[in-house]
Amino acid sequence: MKNILTVGIAGGSGSGKTTLTHVIAQRFPNHTTILNHDDYYKAHDSLTYEERAALNYDEPDAFDNDLFCEHLQKLRRGHDIDCPVYDYSEHNRTAETRRLPARPLILVDGILILSDPNICSLLDLRVFVDTDADIRILRRLARDVAERGRTIDSVIDQYQTTVKPMHEKYVEPSKHMANIIVPEGGENPVAADMITSYIRECLGI
Amino acid sequence: MKNILTVGIAGGSGSGKTTLTHVIAQRFPNHTTILNHDDYYKAHDSLTYEERAALNYDEPDAFDNDLFCEHLQKLRRGHDIDCPVYDYSEHNRTAETRRLPARPLILVDGILILSDPNICSLLDLRVFVDTDADIRILRRLARDVAERGRTIDSVIDQYQTTVKPMHEKYVEPSKHMANIIVPEGGENPVAADMITSYIRECLGI
Repeated sequence: MKNILTVGIAGGSGSGKTTLTHVIAQRFPNHTTILNHDDYYKAHDSLTYEERAALNYDEPDAFDNDLFCEHLQKLRRGHDIDCPVYDYSEHNRTAETRRLPARPLILVDGILILSDPNICSLLDLRVFVDTDADIRILRRLARDVAERGRTIDSVIDQYQTTVKPMHEKYVEPSKHMANIIVPEGGENPVAADMITSYIRECLGI
Repeated sequence: MKNILTVGIAGGSGSGKTTLTHVIAQRFPNHTTILNHDDYYKAHDSLTYEERAALNYDEPDAFDNDLFCEHLQKLRRGHDIDCPVYDYSEHNRTAETRRLPARPLILVDGILILSDPNICSLLDLRVFVDTDADIRILRRLARDVAERGRTIDSVIDQYQTTVKPMHEKYVEPSKHMANIIVPEGGENPVAADMITSYIRECLGI
């Protein structure tokens, strides 16, 4: 089997973890597959739209971690997977899937990936992107208003009712599972270079 | 001029930063010079022993950062330095010096190095070793009682009166200056491997 490295990049909403994931991916353009934890929200076919909309999507139980771990394990063994496709407007998993190729570098992006011990055990390198809460909410607010058509009030309400309490309950403690913590993810070129050097050395590419 | 890399390793008392410094140094045995900030406590020849003993040694002002920066700059330019030798039992600098050779890798070890912007500007990589306060005080207590003949009460008293308040005032905020944060310094082999990969790539060794 060829050499495969799994790198988990976790951190709170707005921390810059997705930016960091893409910075790393661009350094290894033909060797990388990105696995997004967000694609693995649980299917809720037996619930009505209103029931699905009322669920808490910021806690670990919102995710189908059994399927996620099965897929991550397959990628580690060099097998392609068919990743679920989630429809945010329907709050449900679609019938479609998306083929993800097994490649030497598997980047795993997700807010809560380090809060699950089974996921942790499948990650060769665990990175936590740590950004101050005020900066994170400002980024989330700007993004959700500009790109997702949300009102300021609805973003503030969701932040206070689920995002912040779930961050403090699950995301913040999961930092302890990280091998390294990156302050200001997307804006930290030295940390990106370090992760790049490590990947290059591990994979010999 | 040959390629020289300066790596600062900061963190609270008992964080494991010195262990990490030595782990890294052992990976590059003939290429490393370790510069200890602790050797640069200010000289206080005009004070009595009692006056010197009463000083606060846990704040930035306790250090001769002008000399420290001058020496770090010399090492970066490839010149050997004569590092001061401090006598802890006298709370004063001795008349002796110790020759430190300029080598490609300069590891800079010190609790407060990231709290000084001039020192920060001379560090190519800034690492902060982050370990929980309870673990840190237990390590410090065990070390000071076993190796330095201190009583438990005196360690507790010093911790509460200067170490902890100075940590919260200066050390903890200096974490923001780090490029990467290493949880559990000496006990984190993946982080040590990452730093090693980065140094190897930067220096081509």
